Amino acid sequence: MSEAARRIDTFVQEHLDRYIAETIRLCAQPSVSARGEGIAACADMVAAMLAAHGLQVRTIATPGNPVIVGHADGKSPRTLLCYNHYDVQPPEPLELWTSPPFEPTLRDGALYARGVADDKGELVSRLAAIDAVRAAHGGALPCGVTVVVEGEEEVGSPHIAQFVRQNLGLLQSQGAIWEVGGPDPDGRPVIALGFRGILSVELAVQVMSGDAHSGSAHILPNAAWRLLWALATLKDPDERIRIPHFYENALPPTDRDRQILDEMPVHEELLRREHGLRAFCRGAKGKELNHAVFEPTCNICGITAGYQGPGTKTVIPARASAKVDFRLVPGQEPDEILAGLRAHLDREGYGDVVVTRLGAMSPAKTPADDPFVMLTARTGDEVYGRPTLLDPLEGGSSPSYAFSGPLGGIPVVLAGVGYWGSRAHAPDEHIRLDDFRQGIRHVARILEGFAEL
Amino acid sequence: MSEAARRIDTFVQEHLDRYIAETIRLCAQPSVSARGEGIAACADMVAAMLAAHGLQVRTIATPGNPVIVGHADGKSPRTLLCYNHYDVQPPEPLELWTSPPFEPTLRDGALYARGVADDKGELVSRLAAIDAVRAAHGGALPCGVTVVVEGEEEVGSPHIAQFVRQNLGLLQSQGAIWEVGGPDPDGRPVIALGFRGILSVELAVQVMSGDAHSGSAHILPNAAWRLLWALATLKDPDERIRIPHFYENALPPTDRDRQILDEMPVHEELLRREHGLRAFCRGAKGKELNHAVFEPTCNICGITAGYQGPGTKTVIPARASAKVDFRLVPGQEPDEILAGLRAHLDREGYGDVVVTRLGAMSPAKTPADDPFVMLTARTGDEVYGRPTLLDPLEGGSSPSYAFSGPLGGIPVVLAGVGYWGSRAHAPDEHIRLDDFRQGIRHVARILEGFAEL
Repeated sequence: MSEAARRIDTFVQEHLDRYIAETIRLCAQPSVSARGEGIAACADMVAAMLAAHGLQVRTIATPGNPVIVGHADGKSPRTLLCYNHYDVQPPEPLELWTSPPFEPTLRDGALYARGVADDKGELVSRLAAIDAVRAAHGGALPCGVTVVVEGEEEVGSPHIAQFVRQNLGLLQSQGAIWEVGGPDPDGRPVIALGFRGILSVELAVQVMSGDAHSGSAHILPNAAWRLLWALATLKDPDERIRIPHFYENALPPTDRDRQILDEMPVHEELLRREHGLRAFCRGAKGKELNHAVFEPTCNICGITAGYQGPGTKTVIPARASAKVDFRLVPGQEPDEILAGLRAHLDREGYGDVVVTRLGAMSPAKTPADDPFVMLTARTGDEVYGRPTLLDPLEGGSSPSYAFSGPLGGIPVVLAGVGYWGSRAHAPDEHIRLDDFRQGIRHVARILEGFAEL
Repeated sequence: MSEAARRIDTFVQEHLDRYIAETIRLCAQPSVSARGEGIAACADMVAAMLAAHGLQVRTIATPGNPVIVGHADGKSPRTLLCYNHYDVQPPEPLELWTSPPFEPTLRDGALYARGVADDKGELVSRLAAIDAVRAAHGGALPCGVTVVVEGEEEVGSPHIAQFVRQNLGLLQSQGAIWEVGGPDPDGRPVIALGFRGILSVELAVQVMSGDAHSGSAHILPNAAWRLLWALATLKDPDERIRIPHFYENALPPTDRDRQILDEMPVHEELLRREHGLRAFCRGAKGKELNHAVFEPTCNICGITAGYQGPGTKTVIPARASAKVDFRLVPGQEPDEILAGLRAHLDREGYGDVVVTRLGAMSPAKTPADDPFVMLTARTGDEVYGRPTLLDPLEGGSSPSYAFSGPLGGIPVVLAGVGYWGSRAHAPDEHIRLDDFRQGIRHVARILEGFAEL
């Protein structure tokens, strides 16, 4: 281990409590973008926090929530970009939280709060890494660093692509560390290299002016049935999506991707236990569970119609709606899928089913042999004392596409302070304090090595 | 018109305000069986009311709410039974009421209150008719009368069949007037002769222990999709129910039924306007809308899964459920349909979809040529001054099956004080005062003629 690395580790060890306290303060501020709760206050808090860590801060307005950008020059002209977000998922259902979502609580070596894993703990860990590298290098950074913190990631980052296009100069960089990361169930660091895209839509149909008595169900139309039949045309019980041309542009994994997927451990029993599963989709098992990420999906996030309370109410629902998301693999573009969906519904006779686009992101992927990927893996090996795993494509989505392409095809990697059981988006979201410490060490080493690539 | 009829009409005219006041008092007492609100107080009020009208009253306990039975002997050994209920639907949504649901309000010649049409105004009108017939006959009734008032009709009358079986002696009668009735949109009296049965179930499926992030939708199962595919096996988009043997025992309408259905007016434009329809089920029109009541239905009353709030939440629902009701035609029995549904789901591979029986009633139907039907029609012609319409089968359900069969196949008819626009089960439920007066006259004439059949 280098002398600088040793100094980084000492700094992190000595100042860890301060960064935990900072994370607690940030998580205590609600910032639910889905309903605009606490956004302005949280944006202000983040801007002040970045400034307090010695970054030059700009708060940049968008048609939605502001983006906070902090920058510090380094000795090298190379700049590393860190992408994070200050907004969080809605905390509901509240009754399933052991401690209240916006009262961060330390328990059994972990910190529980809405947004602590996704993504406020990550943001603080990167500021801590910047401090640590500065401390290890007598106050100067070896490379420049730009921290971008947006406020709409949890609602699909609707303005981030436009923001990047309008601020290309400000965002010039040669690589990016993405929002989240952390070790796998065996404690091995994982470097994910890409995200699936997403298209989120609502399908809604109204067949009457109001609900009616079900004694008239022989003559009055039922919105729940109509929506259900329309949805049933989208995907068969074997999980095959029936929208024509849906799979047409989907790229298969490369040979290197397949090799990585084969090398990745399979956490079949863990997943089965964690989710209380009888079976996986399509009866998949073993390595198939790794390779399946290259299957795009059509998922019903929610469906609602008619009476949902206790007992019975014999009504015919006048209106029904469903929220559906498609996870897209490299090659698929959300707006092409949306057009295909609309055309398909029209062709199947469901022209009255209104499709509303709720959000979209393109897929994006960094090649496994990029030198930045190798730096991240090498430093991961050192910090975690275990060989780093690569993950060619995450099942989820994130707006890395909005940065990587427009900034000249920069590589984007994931490294961070969460873990597989962090329960992001769910009750009892948390990070383990040891992951927090390790994540800071890892990002600090990446920052240190980045100038030399 | 007979001298007795004239005396009845005079009595009704002179005492109408008293019965309106009595209806107001009864409707001011909440009695929401769905949540047990005000049931005991309302049962006491009804018992006192029946006694005040000179009936011998018994309050009979059931495993649910008590049934109140009032009886008076007549000159003839024949007895007419009146079936009513003192419970009402929940009043929600409260904000759509012009005046509060339990503050009965007279407005524009109508009385507004929850339960006034369904079924408290009807009950009072029958007590008024008994008074009127007594007054017209020097205090004696020409036939016996038994008034049955149950307290669980709005939750599917789960105990009425058992109650009848246990009280056959008490309920001996040769015909029954059922809970509601009244004129059609053209002011013609309508005598309905039967009800479809009903089977209410909940279908629920749980595929995981909790909701998961939709980024894992390529490997984790989705309860909403699974329920939707299961439901899609129940009914095709052409409204044909796909459960094997479902139609096997369904009796078609008799020739006389078909003739009546052809003679019935079709309120196509009224229905279209009332419900804001683009089209009826199966594209039915004209007389088809009358005949369709002999089609049993499979109706989704409500469906729920996952996230249903504003915006997006990218989750995979672990649990999904739907409330479904089947309206059954004569010949179909709810428990046979339930067994068929279960067997069908198992055969289609949906053994994990849990079916819960929420309630059931059998269909029942009185032949149009029964002398009691003819008496009711004849007196309807006289009271309303328009030829009475027969209606072989109501689309809705009511526990007349629980009385007609066990009491020896007695005929059951509908005649009453509501009208097609009474908004039973909806906000601003009301009766028109003139319908109230006419309904009393009609039932009084049926009571008068019943001894002679």
